[in-house]
Amino acid sequence: MKSIEQVAIVGGIHGNEVIGAHLIQKFERYPELIQRTTLNVIPLLGNPRAFAACKRYMETDLNRCFQLQDLQDPTRTSYEDRRAKQIYQLLRPAGQPHVDVIVDLHSTTANMGLTLILGSYHPFNLQLAAYLSTISPLVKVFSYTEVHQSSAVLRSLCELGLAIEVGAVAQGVLQAERFAETEALVHAVLNYLEAYNNGIILPGLRPLILYEYVETIDYPRTAEGEITAMIHPLRQGQDYQPLQPGDPLFLTFDYQVISYHGEPMLYPVFVNEAAYYEKGIAMYLTRKREVTI
Amino acid sequence: MKSIEQVAIVGGIHGNEVIGAHLIQKFERYPELIQRTTLNVIPLLGNPRAFAACKRYMETDLNRCFQLQDLQDPTRTSYEDRRAKQIYQLLRPAGQPHVDVIVDLHSTTANMGLTLILGSYHPFNLQLAAYLSTISPLVKVFSYTEVHQSSAVLRSLCELGLAIEVGAVAQGVLQAERFAETEALVHAVLNYLEAYNNGIILPGLRPLILYEYVETIDYPRTAEGEITAMIHPLRQGQDYQPLQPGDPLFLTFDYQVISYHGEPMLYPVFVNEAAYYEKGIAMYLTRKREVTI
Repeated sequence: MKSIEQVAIVGGIHGNEVIGAHLIQKFERYPELIQRTTLNVIPLLGNPRAFAACKRYMETDLNRCFQLQDLQDPTRTSYEDRRAKQIYQLLRPAGQPHVDVIVDLHSTTANMGLTLILGSYHPFNLQLAAYLSTISPLVKVFSYTEVHQSSAVLRSLCELGLAIEVGAVAQGVLQAERFAETEALVHAVLNYLEAYNNGIILPGLRPLILYEYVETIDYPRTAEGEITAMIHPLRQGQDYQPLQPGDPLFLTFDYQVISYHGEPMLYPVFVNEAAYYEKGIAMYLTRKREVTI
Repeated sequence: MKSIEQVAIVGGIHGNEVIGAHLIQKFERYPELIQRTTLNVIPLLGNPRAFAACKRYMETDLNRCFQLQDLQDPTRTSYEDRRAKQIYQLLRPAGQPHVDVIVDLHSTTANMGLTLILGSYHPFNLQLAAYLSTISPLVKVFSYTEVHQSSAVLRSLCELGLAIEVGAVAQGVLQAERFAETEALVHAVLNYLEAYNNGIILPGLRPLILYEYVETIDYPRTAEGEITAMIHPLRQGQDYQPLQPGDPLFLTFDYQVISYHGEPMLYPVFVNEAAYYEKGIAMYLTRKREVTI
C-alpha cells in the first residue's frame, strides 16, 4: 500500500457533540499539535451552524448525507445536504489527491468508553484498531457494516479510518476527562500513521477483539409509535456487557420488567443514546469476535 | 392557613427534560395514581411542542416567560409566550380559585441528585422541604431567590410549592431509576399535602439543611464570548461538595488549571448543566445553612 499523505480529523458533524467540535477548534488554533513530518493533517469542523446552535443538526442528520447518489443530487438543498457536498469537495477534490484517512470524532450519551467504529475490515483499519486497543482499557472496537447506513456516513468517503465515539457524555456538555482522552486517541492515530509512513507497524493487541453489529433493538412502542418502556436500570450504562435470554431489558412506565428473548451471549452497545430515540434504536446488539491479524 | 385544594404537577416545561414529561403522560393515563381524597391534582405537560421536538424550547425559554408584566404584554407572541399565557389561565383562572401548590419537574446534566428548588421561605415550603429531606439521602434543598429570574419561572405563579431537579441525566434521555425516584418524590409531596389537610404535619429533618444562592460563576471566555476552559475533572459531578480557595475549578483546552479564589466554604450546584452554557452559567455557588423550623 502507498504511504498516507492526507488525513482529515473531523469533529462536530453533530453540533451538540461538543467535545469533538472544541477539539477541532483547538487544532485550528494550534496547528503544530497535529503536524507530523510525513502527513498533511486537515482539521475540519463538520457542522458549524449546528455547533453554534448546540443542536445535532439544523434540518437533517449530516452523518446520513454522504451517499454518492445524494451528493450528486441537485434537488437535495437542505443546509446539511449542502454542507455534505462542501465536505465532499474538500476531502475528495476533483483532479487532486483525495484524503487518505478520515478520523471522525463523536460523543454519545451511552457508556461507550472510547469506541472505534470501523466501516470496513480493510487490513489497515484492523491493524490501526489493534494498535489503538493497546492505548487505554476504555478502547473498544465496534464494526458496523450494515450496508445502507454505513454508505451514508462521513467515514464512507474514504476506505481508511474510523469514527470515535466517546461516552457517556450528555449532549451539549464538555467533559474535560473525555476531551483529554479523545485528544490522546487522535495523537495515537497520527503517531501510528507517521510510523507507518516510516516503515514501522506499531504493534497491536493480539488477538484484536471486535464487536460486530448483529441487529437493532427498538423501544417497546404503541401502535402510534409512542414509547412504552425505558431501558431497565440493570442494563443502563452496561454497554459491552453480555446479554443472555431472560435478562431484564426494559422497564415499562408502570414498572413491569420486559426481558430479553433472543440469541444468547450478544453484547449491547449504544444503550440509551439520546439521538437514537427518533431513529427507533434503543441499542444495537453485537457479537464479540477475536480476530488474528 | 387554609387547606390545600388544587395542586398542579407540571413536567416538560423544558421539552428535552423528558423524565418529567413522561411522568405527566403517565399521570394523564392513570389519574388514580395522583388522586387524593382532599386534593384536586392537575397533571400538566408544560411545553408539548418542544417535548415532541425533544428541544428545550422552540423560540424562547418557557421557564423565563412567567413575569406578570410579560404575561400581560400582547406584543409577546412567541410559542412559549403564548403557552405561558395559557398556563397562567389554567392555573390562575379569572374569577375562579387559583391553584394552591405547583410542583414543577425538571432534570439536569449536573449531578444534583433530587434537588428541591424553593422560590420562597414561606414556612409551609420549608416544612414540606424538611419532610421530603427524610425520604431519600439524594434530596437536597436549594433556595434560589435572586429577584429577577425567580419572578419569571413557573413556580412564581404560586406562593407554595417547588421545582424538582433530578440529575445527572443527559438531555433527551429517560433513565428508569431517576424516573422512579422522581415519581416517589411526587407521591411524597401529595401524601404530605393530604396529611396537612387532615390536620397532620408529617415530621421533617431537623434542622433543615438549605443551600442558599450566593453567586453565579461563568466559564472563562474570550472577549468575543467563546469559552476557553472546561469544568475541572476534580469538580465535575461534585455538586454540593465544598469549594475552598485554591481548589481547581476549570481546565483550559490546553490543560492549564484555573483555581478558585473566592469566599471559603461555598458549595457549587448546577455544575456543567448543558442548557446553562448559553446563559453564561458554569455553576452557582451556595452557602450551606441549617434552619430550625
